[in-house]
Amino acid sequence: MTAHTLADLASVPGVAPRDAATRDFVFNHTMLRVKDPVASLDFYTRVLGFTLVRKADFEQAKFSLFFLALVDDATVIPEDGDARREWLARQPGVLELTHNHGTESQDGPVYHDGNSDPRGFGHICVSVPDVRAACARFESLGVPFQKRLSDGSMKSIAFIKDPDGYWVEIIQPTPL
Amino acid sequence: MTAHTLADLASVPGVAPRDAATRDFVFNHTMLRVKDPVASLDFYTRVLGFTLVRKADFEQAKFSLFFLALVDDATVIPEDGDARREWLARQPGVLELTHNHGTESQDGPVYHDGNSDPRGFGHICVSVPDVRAACARFESLGVPFQKRLSDGSMKSIAFIKDPDGYWVEIIQPTPL
Repeated sequence: MTAHTLADLASVPGVAPRDAATRDFVFNHTMLRVKDPVASLDFYTRVLGFTLVRKADFEQAKFSLFFLALVDDATVIPEDGDARREWLARQPGVLELTHNHGTESQDGPVYHDGNSDPRGFGHICVSVPDVRAACARFESLGVPFQKRLSDGSMKSIAFIKDPDGYWVEIIQPTPL
Repeated sequence: MTAHTLADLASVPGVAPRDAATRDFVFNHTMLRVKDPVASLDFYTRVLGFTLVRKADFEQAKFSLFFLALVDDATVIPEDGDARREWLARQPGVLELTHNHGTESQDGPVYHDGNSDPRGFGHICVSVPDVRAACARFESLGVPFQKRLSDGSMKSIAFIKDPDGYWVEIIQPTPL
């Protein structure tokens, strides 16, 4: 594995200098469809610490959207609905869950995790201050693992699975 | 569509109070597999303004990882490789692109966008200061649209497509 300087990275084929027209663009959210919002909200709030910031119900089209953010202690989420919606749209790292009404009563898995054919989407990743402590807590909570820290050759990375089977990578910023 | 207060949202079935053990958890990145990194890097840097912050090449396993962030003008990305990797792991809103070597020379699409059967992942979203100006620029750059602002009933939202066909929603935080 080679290290690359920022100058190296700026000359990787395909990489273009930033256009001023993209100023203040924010990678706001990632959307995943979920079978059962009760199970998914439990997982993302209780297990991973996300806060449900917005819910939108489309009764005629029979779906609901749930927007979740992993905020730090200092963050104050606006109470007012319009202000909160605007605040949410300016945040990076939001998770949008889409529930098509009725899927929760279907038998078995409803959605495809992207990691078997046909592949595409791979995973989301949550970084944590202490990956060993986080994994020990996930074990104690009975969270299923796709890859424990001890599995395979990459001992600093784990993958857990959300209720739909989507992979959630768990890393820590500092070396183990 | 109903508005929900923060108190309403805290009592949605499944939502749990935040466990202190999740303090400093960050929704760090979303990983998508891409057929041709040259095309994808061009799209995410030139069209959407991302910066390539890290590249990791696994020659034996025949894949490369590209980590991209949409940073604001004030952000200084660390030069030093280790410091940069740590910085990157603390950021929300990072995009990881995985290139399995050789896919770029296959005919036709290689990956599944998640929006036809089997469904799962839906899209990523970039919020922009002015969605009309952003969409006019995408048109001038020849970017394919999944949904123009004028299509359908939601006139404030557009979807463009990346080189693999993944949907990228474009919104602005303020009302149109």
